[in-house]
This record gives sequence, structure tokens and C-alpha cells, in this order.
Amino acid sequence: MARQFDTRPTIFSSEGRLYQVEYAIETVSYANPCLGIKTEEGIVLVAEHNSSNHCDRMEKIYQLNENTLCGTAGIASDVQVLVGEARAIGQRFQFCYGAIMPTEQLTSHLCDIMQAHTQTGGKRPFGVYMLFAGWDKELGYQLLQSDPSGNYTLWRAVCIGKNFLAATHLLEQELANKTGSISLEDAKQLALRALSRTSLATELLPDMVEVATLQRLQDKTLFTRLEPSEVQALFNKQKAKPTA
Amino acid sequence: MARQFDTRPTIFSSEGRLYQVEYAIETVSYANPCLGIKTEEGIVLVAEHNSSNHCDRMEKIYQLNENTLCGTAGIASDVQVLVGEARAIGQRFQFCYGAIMPTEQLTSHLCDIMQAHTQTGGKRPFGVYMLFAGWDKELGYQLLQSDPSGNYTLWRAVCIGKNFLAATHLLEQELANKTGSISLEDAKQLALRALSRTSLATELLPDMVEVATLQRLQDKTLFTRLEPSEVQALFNKQKAKPTA
Amino acid sequence: MARQFDTRPTIFSSEGRLYQVEYAIETVSYANPCLGIKTEEGIVLVAEHNSSNHCDRMEKIYQLNENTLCGTAGIASDVQVLVGEARAIGQRFQFCYGAIMPTEQLTSHLCDIMQAHTQTGGKRPFGVYMLFAGWDKELGYQLLQSDPSGNYTLWRAVCIGKNFLAATHLLEQELANKTGSISLEDAKQLALRALSRTSLATELLPDMVEVATLQRLQDKTLFTRLEPSEVQALFNKQKAKPTA
Amino acid sequence: MARQFDTRPTIFSSEGRLYQVEYAIETVSYANPCLGIKTEEGIVLVAEHNSSNHCDRMEKIYQLNENTLCGTAGIASDVQVLVGEARAIGQRFQFCYGAIMPTEQLTSHLCDIMQAHTQTGGKRPFGVYMLFAGWDKELGYQLLQSDPSGNYTLWRAVCIGKNFLAATHLLEQELANKTGSISLEDAKQLALRALSRTSLATELLPDMVEVATLQRLQDKTLFTRLEPSEVQALFNKQKAKPTA
Amino acid sequence: MARQFDTRPTIFSSEGRLYQVEYAIETVSYANPCLGIKTEEGIVLVAEHNSSNHCDRMEKIYQLNENTLCGTAGIASDVQVLVGEARAIGQRFQFCYGAIMPTEQLTSHLCDIMQAHTQTGGKRPFGVYMLFAGWDKELGYQLLQSDPSGNYTLWRAVCIGKNFLAATHLLEQELANKTGSISLEDAKQLALRALSRTSLATELLPDMVEVATLQRLQDKTLFTRLEPSEVQALFNKQKAKPTA
Amino acid sequence: MARQFDTRPTIFSSEGRLYQVEYAIETVSYANPCLGIKTEEGIVLVAEHNSSNHCDRMEKIYQLNENTLCGTAGIASDVQVLVGEARAIGQRFQFCYGAIMPTEQLTSHLCDIMQAHTQTGGKRPFGVYMLFAGWDKELGYQLLQSDPSGNYTLWRAVCIGKNFLAATHLLEQELANKTGSISLEDAKQLALRALSRTSLATELLPDMVEVATLQRLQDKTLFTRLEPSEVQALFNKQKAKPTA
Amino acid sequence: MARQFDTRPTIFSSEGRLYQVEYAIETVSYANPCLGIKTEEGIVLVAEHNSSNHCDRMEKIYQLNENTLCGTAGIASDVQVLVGEARAIGQRFQFCYGAIMPTEQLTSHLCDIMQAHTQTGGKRPFGVYMLFAGWDKELGYQLLQSDPSGNYTLWRAVCIGKNFLAATHLLEQELANKTGSISLEDAKQLALRALSRTSLATELLPDMVEVATLQRLQDKTLFTRLEPSEVQALFNKQKAKPTA
Repeated sequence: MARQFDTRPTIFSSEGRLYQVEYAIETVSYANPCLGIKTEEGIVLVAEHNSSNHCDRMEKIYQLNENTLCGTAGIASDVQVLVGEARAIGQRFQFCYGAIMPTEQLTSHLCDIMQAHTQTGGKRPFGVYMLFAGWDKELGYQLLQSDPSGNYTLWRAVCIGKNFLAATHLLEQELANKTGSISLEDAKQLALRALSRTSLATELLPDMVEVATLQRLQDKTLFTRLEPSEVQALFNKQKAKPTA
Repeated sequence: MARQFDTRPTIFSSEGRLYQVEYAIETVSYANPCLGIKTEEGIVLVAEHNSSNHCDRMEKIYQLNENTLCGTAGIASDVQVLVGEARAIGQRFQFCYGAIMPTEQLTSHLCDIMQAHTQTGGKRPFGVYMLFAGWDKELGYQLLQSDPSGNYTLWRAVCIGKNFLAATHLLEQELANKTGSISLEDAKQLALRALSRTSLATELLPDMVEVATLQRLQDKTLFTRLEPSEVQALFNKQKAKPTA
Repeated sequence: MARQFDTRPTIFSSEGRLYQVEYAIETVSYANPCLGIKTEEGIVLVAEHNSSNHCDRMEKIYQLNENTLCGTAGIASDVQVLVGEARAIGQRFQFCYGAIMPTEQLTSHLCDIMQAHTQTGGKRPFGVYMLFAGWDKELGYQLLQSDPSGNYTLWRAVCIGKNFLAATHLLEQELANKTGSISLEDAKQLALRALSRTSLATELLPDMVEVATLQRLQDKTLFTRLEPSEVQALFNKQKAKPTA
Repeated sequence: MARQFDTRPTIFSSEGRLYQVEYAIETVSYANPCLGIKTEEGIVLVAEHNSSNHCDRMEKIYQLNENTLCGTAGIASDVQVLVGEARAIGQRFQFCYGAIMPTEQLTSHLCDIMQAHTQTGGKRPFGVYMLFAGWDKELGYQLLQSDPSGNYTLWRAVCIGKNFLAATHLLEQELANKTGSISLEDAKQLALRALSRTSLATELLPDMVEVATLQRLQDKTLFTRLEPSEVQALFNKQKAKPTA
Repeated sequence: MARQFDTRPTIFSSEGRLYQVEYAIETVSYANPCLGIKTEEGIVLVAEHNSSNHCDRMEKIYQLNENTLCGTAGIASDVQVLVGEARAIGQRFQFCYGAIMPTEQLTSHLCDIMQAHTQTGGKRPFGVYMLFAGWDKELGYQLLQSDPSGNYTLWRAVCIGKNFLAATHLLEQELANKTGSISLEDAKQLALRALSRTSLATELLPDMVEVATLQRLQDKTLFTRLEPSEVQALFNKQKAKPTA
Repeated sequence: MARQFDTRPTIFSSEGRLYQVEYAIETVSYANPCLGIKTEEGIVLVAEHNSSNHCDRMEKIYQLNENTLCGTAGIASDVQVLVGEARAIGQRFQFCYGAIMPTEQLTSHLCDIMQAHTQTGGKRPFGVYMLFAGWDKELGYQLLQSDPSGNYTLWRAVCIGKNFLAATHLLEQELANKTGSISLEDAKQLALRALSRTSLATELLPDMVEVATLQRLQDKTLFTRLEPSEVQALFNKQKAKPTA
Repeated sequence: MARQFDTRPTIFSSEGRLYQVEYAIETVSYANPCLGIKTEEGIVLVAEHNSSNHCDRMEKIYQLNENTLCGTAGIASDVQVLVGEARAIGQRFQFCYGAIMPTEQLTSHLCDIMQAHTQTGGKRPFGVYMLFAGWDKELGYQLLQSDPSGNYTLWRAVCIGKNFLAATHLLEQELANKTGSISLEDAKQLALRALSRTSLATELLPDMVEVATLQRLQDKTLFTRLEPSEVQALFNKQKAKPTA
């Protein structure tokens, strides 16, 4: 009976819920996970792919502007549209104000578009969770997470996609155990460990993992996407020390 | 049978009710509460957050223009959209008339937008209750509350969100007991006490509480967001005197 | 079976009724009442509020232009929208013709907007009854009443909102008993008496009642909103003479 | 089963009927009647009102332009919209061509608007029957009747509203009995007699009846709305001669 | 079950039928018939009306431009709209090209409008059959018939409305019996005979019949609408020779 | 249960079918057939009509531009619209580029319009199959067939409408038997034979058949529509040699 | 019960799935397959057609711009629209930037259009899978595959249409067996072998197969569509060596 509330994004159910948004969130619960950890040295993003060997290139982590990187989980074509939109927003900002759009402003702008899809007829919410990793002069490194309802929050470490609750919990525990901030290198190890736990694949293989870092060095924001060999090296280190 | 009236915002039920608006109001009955108390020295707003430790920053109280602050309860992404809209309305006013938009005028304008969402097809009402705290030359301090139907009312002390009826009742009783106006400092204590009663969390922790004040001092409207340490101090005071 | 006719404003039922309009009218049957009495000395409007003590200010009677006052009963946010619309209509008229818009013309214009909401898809009728009290050079004092269907009628004394039929009947009887016209002061007493009969509150308190008058004195149209003390005085007089 | 055809104005039923238009026509079967009789001396229109004594003024007969009068039966707010539209159409014509718009052309134009409401989605047909009484140089006096489908026909004597079939039949019979044309004064008597027969009120009172005539005298079209005393006189005459 | 296909004009049923168009055609099966016969001397159109004596004027045959006449059967208000549209089309043509729009081109243009109403959402097909009688320099006399689907065909003799199949069959037989072309006078007799057979009225009266002819004489296209006396004469002739 | 997929053109069924398009195709399975055969000497198109004797002229084969002819089967009013559209497309091309629009380009353009009607809400697919016979400098003679989905294919010989599969099969067999290309005269005979087999009429009569040819002679594209006598001659030849 | 989620493209089901997109994908599971293999010498595309002998020309592989070729599987008229759109996109790019649009950028742009059809009301997703084969200066040869959801991925060898999973698996295995890259000639053989396995036709005939290659030779991108004789030669080679 309560079903009739869930066929349109623009209807509240009698309990005050927006079912279409919840279903869009459900979509992402099947998606391959993506993790982010913020350290004082920079931010690391790690994403898992399917093991389709002969597919040449896969990307779940995108650069949005000179200071912002994003990791994604959810419907691939929705991701494309949002990433394209975000880049356009950033470029318009740069054209108007001659400055790089700050990460949170970009996130907020993109989230308003997602929110509009939950409140307008003839649309469906975007089936995408996103991580925004950025740096700006005033706030330094920032890690933001957005959901299909168009809400965003700030985090030190967070996971989106399959088993994201378990992974986020693991990250929180590990970070709570460490005293003080951790190094970027430790963050990579930690992210990989959390990913392998949440992954449903019997074994996580190096070519299924995408690792990217954002660092601020010498007045430049540097994006580094790890080479397959570097990812392999991370895996080897991981095996050396059992659970760390 | 009567159910069929509740799937569109633009339908009256046979009893003359607008179910979609009522469901939107229902939404807010799960939201973390936000309180406001108006004194002769200024206005205090207090909001509760979830205890998600590793989330960097949370905001439920926003500045709208030089004279107006707002506290919110409800769907986070709807809040973002309304706050953005309110700021734009205020700026357009300032651009046209060279003056700061008065709080009630701003509230009224924003409420018309919310009302339109209850009367137009292909939209849903906003799932947001808001508190507007402002000052202007003619009316002095003002505390307004809006609901998803787009209605707003003026209050001395009011609560929105979870258990708002109980909290508002508590505030009324406490204020009725006091003879004369209370100081801003007492208002903070009172707000915190009311919040801890309505909170469903077993214990309300300092880092889950956001406290902001609006004061008019030396021809300037001052917004103060309390530092975590100041909030802690308020908590300590609270414990010192049992129920006050 | 007949139910399917009542989910859209733009459908006639098989008996030729517009259910959505009737439901909108139903809405107002729960609203606090508002009364108007026209005398040769002027017009008095009286409205009842809920007894929410700590709410600073409540308004159910609004000035629309220099010659027109309106009293309202129904959905508060719909009222706001219609009052805003009416003021804008009046100002546009004044800008075009350099004269104050006559009350009936203003009423007629606003009613056309209400009617459009009963004949256009994707809208709902306004859930508002209104009283328009005005004066103009040709017709003198006028008291008009509009309903959600967009119809308006001229009255000597009328009530809208809760128990409006009983109250209107009472007013008619009382006025029929009097020979000749009554004074504005008597009209206030009569309005208060009628209101206290229709009110469902066990006892009608002075701070729950809003009283306003429109008079033409020395080529000026005067609006007077009674101070709480003046309302109290009316209440005291009322008690002095039992049923008058 | 056949019911599903009657929820939209833009659907033919399987028998080729437009139910929404028929329901709109049904609406008018509850409306107070309005009669028109065309004589060689002019046209008389008579309408019945409800007996709400304290309502100041009631109008069911409107002047549309210098040569045209209309009587109405049906939803009062729909009437307002159509009358306003008709006046605007007439004024636009006068502005373009510097001549008074002929009655039939005005009727035809207004009927096209009504027809559009029976063929376009998201609208409902107008719930209004109208009588158009006019004079022009070529065709002399004309009496036209329009229905909610947007059709219009020319008549010598016709009734709209409650029991219109019986009344029209009565008029036809009476006119058939008379040899030659009848005088305007006789037409008034006849109209009143027909109205009192169709009226469901136990007794038709003078203040419930509106009488208006259209005459062409000395190159001017004259509209006369009878004063209450004149209506009373008609009633007195009526009683003098039993059934005439 | 198959019912669900017939509620929208823009849906094919599973058998590939457009039910809404068929229902519109059904509508016309109740309409009073209209006949056309093309001879070498001109074209005759004959239409039947209801026997509503006191209705002043009835028209089912309209002139569209200097060379074209049309007869109609179906919903009267739809007819008005189409006739108005056809006249406007003809005038625009004349304005652009300085020539009278040929009958078939006019028909084709009008039929495209009717077709659009069978293929666009939010519309209903026109419930009208039409006969177009015209003359042009190249093709001489032409008699065209259009249906609600927007299709048109060329005929020597054809009937639309009630029992149109029987009447068309009768016309075909009679014309087949005659050797060579018939005179316009014989065509009138034949049309009247066919009409009286299809008419459901117990007896067809002269004042229920409208007769019009289109002839090309001395480089002018002449339209003649028969006077009541001329129609009476036709009826008298008819009775003289039993079945002709 | 699966029914719900077939009421809108813009819905895929669970098996991935577009039912509305299939129903539109079904429509054409009742239409009178039309055949085309391409030879090295030109193209012949043959269409069957209903045997309505007194209908003056029937056309199912239309010229689109100087080089293109089309044969049609399906809803007659849809055909009119598409033919009109095709001619306009061709003229716009000629106006822009000063050259005759090639047949395939014209077909492709028209097919895009048909496709849009299968993918847009509030429309229905066109219920029309078309044959396009054309010549251009580069590709010589071409015979194309389009269906309601907006797809088109190139053929040597093809049939559309009633029993088109049987007829196309027959044409293929006959052409396969012949060695080398056949003459245009033989193609006419073959087309007629195929038509008489597919025709459901007990006997195919000469006045029910429309025959047209497209030939390129002396740098001109010639269209020939056979006179009734020529069609009769073809029929006579046919009878002379039994099955050829 | 869950069915109600699958009638609109803009609804998520309760499991977070977009049924309309899945049904569009289902559509393609009946389509004739198309294969692509990328080698270091170029890319080969192979497509299967139905064996309709007398159809003159069939095309499932199209050139989009100077550097890009595409192979398609799915609804033929949807393919036409997308190919037309892609060419227009490419030409606009060339007009703006004076350079050939890179393959991936073109693919991405086209995919955004497909995605929009999965998120907007009143549309249906495109029922088309596409292969994009291209070359550009920076990335060399590229083989991309898009699906109806608007997602695209990069591949070394991939199949779309009927049995595409089996075919893609076969291609992967064969390529995995080979050490190093394979020659273009071997790729053709491999593609043909994979096609004949997936084909449901009892025997794959040469005239049912379309083979095209894209090569970069002497600073030119060369497209070669194999002649029937060349395809025959490939078939002969195939038979010579049993399973290779």
C-alpha cells in the first residue's frame, strides 16, 4: 500500500520519506567502493574496479579543476554527466573571477543541481555518491562527500559505495588508534587495507585498484595517479606486514 | 481509500487537508532540533548534530545577510538550496535599494517560494523548518519561525525539529517563571537545558552542539559562533546547578 | 466510485460539482473566524487567533491600499501570497492611472486569480476566504466576501471561517432587530458578541482577538487597529450588559 | 466501466460523448434560472437570485458593450471571467475598427474560447450558460444562447438554468397563442410568469428578481435595470390577473 | 481489457486502431445529416436541422471563400472553430498570392489541422465531418468530404451524419440509373429524397431543411441559399411524383 | 500483465520491445498494398484502392520533388502530413543548395521525423509505410522502403501493406527466375500479378489500381501515371498469358 | 508488484535499478552482433546482417568524421538518429576549433545525450549499443563501446548485440593465447570466427557480413569497407584452416 509513494521523486511518503532518493542511494550500495583519507601531507583516494582485463582504461577518479579531485561510485553515465558539469562550473568561475574555484564552493554548486533532481517532476535523482578532495589557501586540505539527495559533509576519512559503513567505521577506528596525524604513505596503506576488507572479490588484485593523491607542494597542487607498478608495490608491502 | 489524496502536493483531501505538506512536516519530526530564544540583549540559537566524530565541520546555523542569522532543521540539501536562495534575495535587495534587507521581509520572500512548492504541480514542498533571528532599526530583535507550508510566525522562544512541541512548552514555562527579561547568558543556559531534554541521545555531548548569538553592539550586528571550548564551559556550568 | 472526480481541480464530477473547490472550502471550516460589519460610520473587522501567548505578533487583518482593508481565514501561507498579490495589483493600478484602485475592482481582479486556480491543471485552489472592507467616492463603504472558487459578494455583515453560517445568521438577526443603522461602537460590540458565540474556545480572551476599523474622516481613509487595552475595554463593556 | 471516459475533457467516450462537457452542463441545472424574450420593441432579460437579504447587491445581468447585454446562469466565478473576457474582446474590436462589435460576432468569439476549454488538456469547460441580448444595424434585435460546449443558437424566447426546458416550452406555447408580436411590457409579464413557474422557491419575492431591458430608441441603445419598486409593481400586476 | 487503449488520442490499440478517432467518428453518427451532389451545372448541398421552431436562424452550410462552400455534421462548437479557421486560412492565402485559394488546397490545409489533433497529446480529435463544394479554373466543380481523422476524398455525391452509408448508397444507385449527368434541379429533388429517407424524424418538414447551391455563371461563383418558400416548393414537387 | 508497456510510445516492455511502434505497424497490415519494382529502365509503383466507384479521384502515389516519387500504405491523413512535410523538406534543400535533393537524403530526413515520434512523449508513431522511388546522378535508380519506426532500407522489389510479406516473397522468386534484368513493361506485368495475388478483393478491377512509373530519359526524370485505359490494357495482357 | 517501477525511465525501483534502461539493453540482445578488434596496425569492425538477398545495400558501420568509425547494434532508426547527431557534433567541433574531434571526446559527447534520455521524463532511452573505432595523435588507435545508459568503456576487443558476452569472452581467450600483438589480417580472421560462433544463423554467408577497417597510413586515416569478393576470400581462408 505504501508503495505508491515511491514512484515519483517529488512525493513525500506518509512517514515523511523521499523513497526515490532512498532508492537512488540503494543503487550505490552495489557500486564498487571508493575511499578517501585526509592527512596533513595531502589526500589519498582509492577506488576499486571490476576485473575486466581487456578493457584498456578505467577511471573512477577525475580531476575537476586545478585544485580539486573527485572519486565516484554509482551509475557510470551519471558520473560522466556530473563530472562534465562540475568542470564547466569551475571554468565559468575561473572565467568570471580569474581565480580557481574553491573546492567547497564547487561541491556546493554541484550539490544544488543534484538536489533539484529530487524536487522537480520528470527527473530522477542522480545515482551517484562522490568524494571531493581539494586544497585552498584558507582551509587547506579538504575531503567532502556528497550523496544523491544533494547533501555534502566534511570528513577526515570516508568511504562510498559497497559496504561503505563498514569501511568508514574501520577507517575511524584505525585513525583513532594512531596518535597524531598519519603520513600520506601510511594513508595509502590504510586505504588499501580498508578496501580489501570491504571488497567482495575473493582477492583484490592490483590491476583492479586505482590510487590517486592530491598534494600541495611549492605553491602547486599536484595530482598523482599511481602507475600499475606502484600499486603492485603497495600490495607487496601490504602482504609483508599482516594486519598492521 | 483516502490515500489517493496524499500523492500530489496540489490536491486537497476530502477533509480539506494538504497531505503532502503534512508529510513534509513529518519529515522534520525526525530532524535534530534547533532552538532560539530572544532576549533584550540579543538572540541565541542552539542546534544539535549527530555524533559523527570524524566529520570535520557541521553547520546548521547560517548567516543570511548583515542583520540576519538562520537556524535549520530538516533535509540537509533542501536547507542548502533555501539558504542559497535567501542570500541571493538579500543581495538583490541590497543592490536595488542600497540597504540591508529587513529580516521579516527576507523571511516573507523566502516563505512565498516555499508556498509556491505547495501549490504547483511537479514540485514537492521543502522538507525544512527554519528559525530567522534578526535585528532591524524599527522592530529591534526579531525571532521568526517558518514551516514547510510557507507560513511564518513571530516568537520570543521557539524550537524546531525533534520534540519541538515539548521544547517550546518548556521554554514558555521557564520564561513565564522569570519575571522581566532574561540575560543572553541565561538564555544560553536555558536553551542548552531545553535541548538536552528533547535530545534523544542518551547524553548530549559538547561537540554535538552548535551555539550562535546575534547581538547589536555599537551600531553593528555581531554574530558569534561559540568555540568548542566555550560550549564545553556552558556544559560545565549546566552541571554545576542541577535543574536551575 | 465517485471518488475519482475529486483528485483534480479541473474535473467536474458526474453531478456537475467541482470537488477540489469544495475541499478547499472545507479547509476554511477549521480556520479561526473573521467577521465584518458595515455601518454608516465605517466598517469593523474582528478576527480570532489561537492562544499562543509567546508568539509576538499575529495578523489576520491586512491593509491592501489606501482605501482597502482585508480580513482573512484559511491557510496562512496562501493568505500571505494573496495579500502580496493584492498589494502589487493595487500599486500597478496606482502607477498606471494615478488613482487609488477601488475596492471592488481590486477584489474582482484578485478573484480572477483565484478562479484561474480552479480551472487550470497543475494548480490547487487557494484555501482562503477573504473579507474586503473599503471605501470609494461613488459607492461609499463596501464590505465584500470572496471564497476559494473566486466568487465574491457584497454584504452588510458577514462572517468567514469556523461556524460562519451561525455567525452570519446571528448578525443578520441582530441587525434586523435594530431599527435604522447602528453606530460603529455598537458594531464592535455586536461583532465581539457574535465572535464569542462562534468561538469554540471555552472562553474568548482579549489577547486572542484582533479588532480593526475603517473610517472615512476629513477626506482621509483611516485604519485603526485597536490596542490590547482597547480590546480589553470592549470585553469589559460586553460583560456589563449580559446579552444586550 | 464506462466511467474512465469522464475524467478528462479531451476524451471521447466509446459512444462518442464528451462527458466532461455534459457534467459542466449538469452544473448549470442547479443554477438559478435566467430568461430572455425578444419583441419588436426590444428584449427583456429576467434572472432569479437567492433570497439572502443582507447581501447588498447581486448581479446576474451584465452589460458587455454599448449594444450588448448578457444574462448568466452557472458558476459565479466562471461568469466573472467570461464577462471580463467579453468586455476586453469588445474593447479591442472598438479600438481596431472604431465601431461597436456586433452582438453575434462577440458571442462567436467568446464561444470559441469556451470551445477551446473542451478540447485542450489541463483545462475544464466553463460551467456557464449565457444569454446575449443585442441590437445591430443590419440584424436588429437578437437573442442568442450559448452553452458550456461553446455552441450558440438564435432564439425568440429562451431560458437557461434550473428547469430551463419547462420554461422554454412555456414561453414557446404562450408566444404561439399570441397572434403577432407582443409588446415589451407584455414580455416582462410573461417572463415573470415563466420564472415563477420554474422557480423552486415556494414563493418568488420581488427582491429575488432582477429585470433588465434593451431597447433601441433615437439611435441609442438603452439598457434599463428595473428599480425594486418597479419590480414590485410588476408583481402586483401579475397577481391582479390570475394566469393571464 | 482492451479498453485502456481508448482513453488517449495518441495511443494505438493492439490491433493497430486509434480508438479516440473512431469515437469521434461515432459522435457524428448521431448528427443530423448533410448531403452533397455534384452535377455539370453546379453543386447542391442539403442539410437537416432539428425542429426547434422558435430558434431564429440555423446554419449548417457556410461559405468559406469566394469559391468554396461547406456543409457540416457533428459537434456544433467544433464546427464553428473549423469554419473560422478555414476562413482565416483562405484570407491569408489571398493576402499572400492575390488569388482565391483553390478548394482542394483549402481542404487539405484544414485536414492537416484535424490530423494534428489525432497525433498530439492533450488534444482531442474534432468531432466533425465536412463537405467542401467548390469550383476552380483547372478542375471545375469539386465535392470533397473530410472525416475526423483528417482524411479527405473526392466524390460525385456523398452524405455525412446520421445513416450516411445508406444515403450515400441510395445516391450512388440513383445516379447509376440515370444516363448522363443530371440537372441541378433534379439533383435538388434527389438530395431531398435521400434526406427524407435517412431522416429519423417521422416526417421531414420544410423548415427543418437547409438547401444551398454553388454555380459558376458568367465568370462568377454564385452561392444561393434557398428561401423557405423555395424549399416548400421543392417539397410540393416531391409529393407530386411518388418515388421518382 | 505485460499490457502496461503498450500504452505509451516511450516505454520499452520487459522484453525490450516498443509495443506502440509494433501496433502502428499492425495498422498498416490492414491497408491496401503498394508495390515497387526497380529495373534498369526505371521504377514502377503499383497501388490498390477500394472499389468506391463514385469517388472521383484517389491517390496513393505522390511526387515529392523532381526526382522522387513515393507510394504509401496506411492511415490516409498521416500520409498527407508526411507527403506535405517531404515536399517542404525538398524545397528548403533546393532553396539552400540550388540542387534537387537526392532521394535517399530526403528519405533519411523524413525518417528522422518518424523516429522522433517513437521516442517523444505526447506523440504517436505515424501509421504509414512508404516506398520512395528516385533517381540521382551518382546512384542511379533507387527504391527505398520506410516503416513506422523510422527505419529505411534499399530494395530491388518490395511490397508494403496487406500481405506484404507474401507479395515481397513472390517478387523475389519471380525476379530470381529471370536471368538478367527485366524490362519496365515486364515489371508492370509482374507488379500487377503480385498485386492480384495479395489482394483480398475477389477480383481486382482496373479502376481499383493505380500505376505510375519513374524513368530517366534525355536528362529529365519522367513521371508517368497510367490512364485508366492503359491500366485496362495491362489487365487484358495479363489474362492472355495465364501465370506467365 | 515491483512492475510499477519499470514504466518510466525516470524511476528507480526499490532495489535501486533503472528498469527502462535494462529493457533498452534487452532490446539489443536480439540485434545482429557487431565486433571490434584493436591491433597495432589498425582496428577491424565486423557486423552481421539478415539474409534478405534483394535488399540492395545494408549498413551497420558508419564513418563519423575523418578519424572515427562506428559499428552499431540495436534499433535501426535510433542508430540513424545517433549517427546523424554524432556527425553534426563532429562538424561543429571542426568549425569551432579547426581540428578533427578526437574519438573519445566525440563518444563522450554522444553518451551524454544518451544519458539524458535515461533521466528526463517523456523520453525513452536509445535502444542502441555502439562501437567507436578511432585514431588520434596522442592516444593512437582506440576502441570504445557505449551502452544505452550512456556509459562508455575502452576495449582491446569487444562484441555488441546477440550473444555479445560469449563473443567477447572468445575474443579475450584467443587474444590471451597469442603472444604479442596480432596483425590486422589475423584480426579479421579472428573477428569472423567469433562472429560465426555467435551467429544464430545455421550458416553465416559472405553476403550477410560487413567488414571495415581503420588504419593510419602516411598521416592519413584510411577507412576500408571490404568488397563482397574480399569477404568471400576471408571465408575461404577460414574454411581452409579448421579452428585455427
